[in-house]
Amino acid sequence: MIIVMDPSAEEEDIQHMVDKVERAGLEAILLRGEKRNVIAAIGDERDAVTEGWTAVRGVERIIPILHPYKLASREASPGSTPVRLNGAVLGETKVQVIAGPCAVEDLDTTLDIAQAVKAAGAVALRGGAYKPRTSPHSFQGLQEEGLKILSEVGRHVGLKVVTEVLTPEQVELVAEHADVLQVGARNMQNFMLLRALGQIGKPVLLKRGISATVEEFLLAAEYILKWGNNQVILCCRGIRTFEDHTRFTLSLSSVAYLKEVTHLPVIADPSHGTGRRSLVGPMSKAAVACGADGLIIEVHPDPERAAVDGQQTLTCDGFARLMKELGPVAEAVGREV
Amino acid sequence: MIIVMDPSAEEEDIQHMVDKVERAGLEAILLRGEKRNVIAAIGDERDAVTEGWTAVRGVERIIPILHPYKLASREASPGSTPVRLNGAVLGETKVQVIAGPCAVEDLDTTLDIAQAVKAAGAVALRGGAYKPRTSPHSFQGLQEEGLKILSEVGRHVGLKVVTEVLTPEQVELVAEHADVLQVGARNMQNFMLLRALGQIGKPVLLKRGISATVEEFLLAAEYILKWGNNQVILCCRGIRTFEDHTRFTLSLSSVAYLKEVTHLPVIADPSHGTGRRSLVGPMSKAAVACGADGLIIEVHPDPERAAVDGQQTLTCDGFARLMKELGPVAEAVGREV
Amino acid sequence: MIIVMDPSAEEEDIQHMVDKVERAGLEAILLRGEKRNVIAAIGDERDAVTEGWTAVRGVERIIPILHPYKLASREASPGSTPVRLNGAVLGETKVQVIAGPCAVEDLDTTLDIAQAVKAAGAVALRGGAYKPRTSPHSFQGLQEEGLKILSEVGRHVGLKVVTEVLTPEQVELVAEHADVLQVGARNMQNFMLLRALGQIGKPVLLKRGISATVEEFLLAAEYILKWGNNQVILCCRGIRTFEDHTRFTLSLSSVAYLKEVTHLPVIADPSHGTGRRSLVGPMSKAAVACGADGLIIEVHPDPERAAVDGQQTLTCDGFARLMKELGPVAEAVGREV
Amino acid sequence: MIIVMDPSAEEEDIQHMVDKVERAGLEAILLRGEKRNVIAAIGDERDAVTEGWTAVRGVERIIPILHPYKLASREASPGSTPVRLNGAVLGETKVQVIAGPCAVEDLDTTLDIAQAVKAAGAVALRGGAYKPRTSPHSFQGLQEEGLKILSEVGRHVGLKVVTEVLTPEQVELVAEHADVLQVGARNMQNFMLLRALGQIGKPVLLKRGISATVEEFLLAAEYILKWGNNQVILCCRGIRTFEDHTRFTLSLSSVAYLKEVTHLPVIADPSHGTGRRSLVGPMSKAAVACGADGLIIEVHPDPERAAVDGQQTLTCDGFARLMKELGPVAEAVGREV
Repeated sequence: MIIVMDPSAEEEDIQHMVDKVERAGLEAILLRGEKRNVIAAIGDERDAVTEGWTAVRGVERIIPILHPYKLASREASPGSTPVRLNGAVLGETKVQVIAGPCAVEDLDTTLDIAQAVKAAGAVALRGGAYKPRTSPHSFQGLQEEGLKILSEVGRHVGLKVVTEVLTPEQVELVAEHADVLQVGARNMQNFMLLRALGQIGKPVLLKRGISATVEEFLLAAEYILKWGNNQVILCCRGIRTFEDHTRFTLSLSSVAYLKEVTHLPVIADPSHGTGRRSLVGPMSKAAVACGADGLIIEVHPDPERAAVDGQQTLTCDGFARLMKELGPVAEAVGREV
Repeated sequence: MIIVMDPSAEEEDIQHMVDKVERAGLEAILLRGEKRNVIAAIGDERDAVTEGWTAVRGVERIIPILHPYKLASREASPGSTPVRLNGAVLGETKVQVIAGPCAVEDLDTTLDIAQAVKAAGAVALRGGAYKPRTSPHSFQGLQEEGLKILSEVGRHVGLKVVTEVLTPEQVELVAEHADVLQVGARNMQNFMLLRALGQIGKPVLLKRGISATVEEFLLAAEYILKWGNNQVILCCRGIRTFEDHTRFTLSLSSVAYLKEVTHLPVIADPSHGTGRRSLVGPMSKAAVACGADGLIIEVHPDPERAAVDGQQTLTCDGFARLMKELGPVAEAVGREV
Repeated sequence: MIIVMDPSAEEEDIQHMVDKVERAGLEAILLRGEKRNVIAAIGDERDAVTEGWTAVRGVERIIPILHPYKLASREASPGSTPVRLNGAVLGETKVQVIAGPCAVEDLDTTLDIAQAVKAAGAVALRGGAYKPRTSPHSFQGLQEEGLKILSEVGRHVGLKVVTEVLTPEQVELVAEHADVLQVGARNMQNFMLLRALGQIGKPVLLKRGISATVEEFLLAAEYILKWGNNQVILCCRGIRTFEDHTRFTLSLSSVAYLKEVTHLPVIADPSHGTGRRSLVGPMSKAAVACGADGLIIEVHPDPERAAVDGQQTLTCDGFARLMKELGPVAEAVGREV
Repeated sequence: MIIVMDPSAEEEDIQHMVDKVERAGLEAILLRGEKRNVIAAIGDERDAVTEGWTAVRGVERIIPILHPYKLASREASPGSTPVRLNGAVLGETKVQVIAGPCAVEDLDTTLDIAQAVKAAGAVALRGGAYKPRTSPHSFQGLQEEGLKILSEVGRHVGLKVVTEVLTPEQVELVAEHADVLQVGARNMQNFMLLRALGQIGKPVLLKRGISATVEEFLLAAEYILKWGNNQVILCCRGIRTFEDHTRFTLSLSSVAYLKEVTHLPVIADPSHGTGRRSLVGPMSKAAVACGADGLIIEVHPDPERAAVDGQQTLTCDGFARLMKELGPVAEAVGREV
């Protein structure tokens, strides 16, 4: 940790800060410069209580040297931590695809979709039972009934089930029906929920918040890891920027960067990431090309009748075509779909 | 609602869309243009089920005419809806100031702060008992003990108590101790929490999410209103942008705009909105000058020892000085502090 | 064009606006709704003088129906407009790669780089002679001497030369030495420069401004097209967002979207788009996978000694390896490198 | 400057970097930490050639300690550098207001506006003769004729004239007619233009680019200062964010922050900063309340007929009212209008 003192800092301010560093168990080295005095605090700053230091008199700026996440970092675990979905493995050579409707609507439609995406090569079925919606006037999901439909269909068709959980109290119920519990972008920093998910024995699919930095994203994963669950799938689903031709900006450099710094598997969501059906194909290919371990894609037999998000949803045929096109792209980067 | 058809749309696509509009209970008027055909759907589009329309074949774009929020809009309630805090009223002439530490640390410190901010003219005491923290390795608040300290101090000193609630399940407990329940920026779209808060009889202080549009902010308020609670205080606390000299960008034009479009009171949080102590004063004055109904400010007798956010915290003396300086600014815009 | 009238608009305001629409040569259709009155203005709104309409009394909002760019749109030219670089063609099946140093430093280094990138398969040599630098204290380029080095090396090695031009007055001189004139991101809306480039007979490589919408980007191209030059290459080089792990966010969905809406060739700049050498490879592959017609990449034999931007520069060997890896990705999407 | 070495860096990489630091004339202090080795480079890093250092093998990250701007900083000039406009002074107690139409249209209208804004208390007349427009199909200004109208009207009415200059070649001509030369937001990093303006003897009004950091803004000013002109007025006019209820987000915390770090006067442009007439008043007051030295406001007798930007333009009466309301706000913060 580097502590830059203000030019106006007096000698006693500097000494006071040096003392604080030493009392926190770090070694303090004072570097006197021409324009600024700087204190280098040597040691693992993440183990020291350093809150409040920026408020100390005479301190201009504090610069951490280490990333604040530990358990999620490659330094903690140099290999990768694949997530097992029975037979399938997410985070190894095979690019795994999760597909399904935005929201579960009824048994028959869900079954149709599940059979179609299974046939096309998907490993898991996605579908929302609890739908967080921007407006209270919009459809909020079938809730528990939706969970039952999902688990029944998943078992019948032979697909793992991925669905969203909204509150700590729902965790137990959702975990009964689902194989992977999803944390939506809006809940990425719902720390009570993350903590509850750290204590279950099932994989968690954690979506990046639309304005979360990569560091904040990894710290959210760190909550789950810290509470004992290391089965975490990171999902990049677009960030909010000034761009207006897509709903969000799907930042694929984050996918590639995450693969560098964390051992957790990383997938991309080109449906929510773009909000435009025509861009789902190109961005799926791009995600695989830059190293994504998987994709999560919205599919519906009749997007026009989909209860939610039809404009970004592929038809079952469209999805099957895309899966075929993804094969060569995956092979081009030494993987398979 | 305006439905712009793609140039490639065929006659049957257009007719199909016209039928959908009419079945949804709206009047459809087809406007044939040189480059595009457009369908105007007349009626209150917010009462119609229009989801999926963007996915209809031949539809290029859907443009809503009305803001999607109803209950929160000035059209629903042309006057203002002040929030009563016993004697005090938030949303009328007097600019109300809420002040206190970021996190509750212990009884004595909280009492000192409360007495200081009361003396300086604050109407309510803020303080976090449950602290949502970006890193799981940071201090997470005193929790229930913090609530007890707050309510005891508030009663003793004669200040209303404002504190954050994190989950639907905590609502009841927090409501026992607090006068105003705060929803943090990270939870602005925690719809289960908003729904629970819609069902209590106490005011809610709703913070704008760091990347929420004003429309999304008002729709979050709409959840609380829809479930029956119209005591909602909107709080602007900075948005995430590319700027790096402040922690967030405090968008004061949102304060002024919200005052135009909603009847709910609007306050600003210059402490979180800037993340720099030296900017809290100037931005407090600016917020009052552009029409904010109140401010929420972090205060601690010794910011360096504050458990959280010391760099943006005023000392008790600094707060008292600021309160004095705010007086003339409020008067200059026809209000008082 | 849709004109939404304010609820407070009076009958005479509406009639006044209807008259304005008709005087502008458009057909006005008044749609009386429950909550708002709306005027649909039928005709090609881009040919009408509509400035000032948003300021008319009683007007709430104006919504254009057509994209404001015409010449750059696929509707103007349904096929594609490839750019010819002698034998090579940019914008057809082959993905073309432009490579070279950020700044031209001296003849020998430039020659080494040119030979290396030519051997690896590049079609053109990039290099800055005039360097726009954020700080006046940084190296500003070799200027005219740099141009001479570039043209000499390009001719000698058999590579087209791409270099930046900063002002309208430089256009003639730069055009003498270069095959493609580049407009940097900071100059995307330097309309005097665009106009000058619209009047030369050489291709222009137009970089997207770091905060330009896609619409503004295409309107900048429209300036060049309007003044008579249709040899425009669009280059996506990253937008400014809140992300801090990369210098910019390389928005590849813009590449895919541009391919939908314009006939101009679109390339990506993964070097400036990420600012990190380790991400150049993954993002190059992703760009090709989602449909980019080409890439522009920074290469230097010794990035540590590069005068500018070393942290994002590939070595000559690294570039040769990447070119080999790009081959299969291009083939996977029906193209070649 | 702090150089953080990668955990994988070898001893020889560290030594190599230490050598580089010393050869650059700085003192190198190697700090060996638990997780990272860090080299502190002591001395004024801004005087050393450090480009390329981020590309050195084994370097993870380089952290500058000093702001890169020198001449613009308060450290260079602890007082303030007011800009003199004949009798008036910008940057001292009086808040100076510049007002006028977005674009100059004709002599009579310009004269009307000038007389109105003079009567209301403005110190200078703004008006665009050369108009940079997003679309080539929009009105581009009266050009030289506009300049003549401005200077004639300014002289006649007794107002200083502020107008935009687009290219280095125009500088001389514009300087003949104008008292203050304006650099528009799109040209903030048009370094050739900045350089030309550094060599004239007239004040420059430099607008912040819509996505420029404060550091980049000050470095743009640094260009003008470096070339010999210290009469620079900084103008905050809104940044591009995800917000969609205003055209831009007027970041007033930048105004307050700039007043801390630079000695140059800082003004705000609430017209372009919001793009909505109804917000110009509240944001003008807020800007004054947080310390702006001046305002630049668009005024037109008939905004509906204004050639450009009518939706954000005040009427002459509206401007006069606002000027009256600004008085008490200025007094509340110890200034006057």
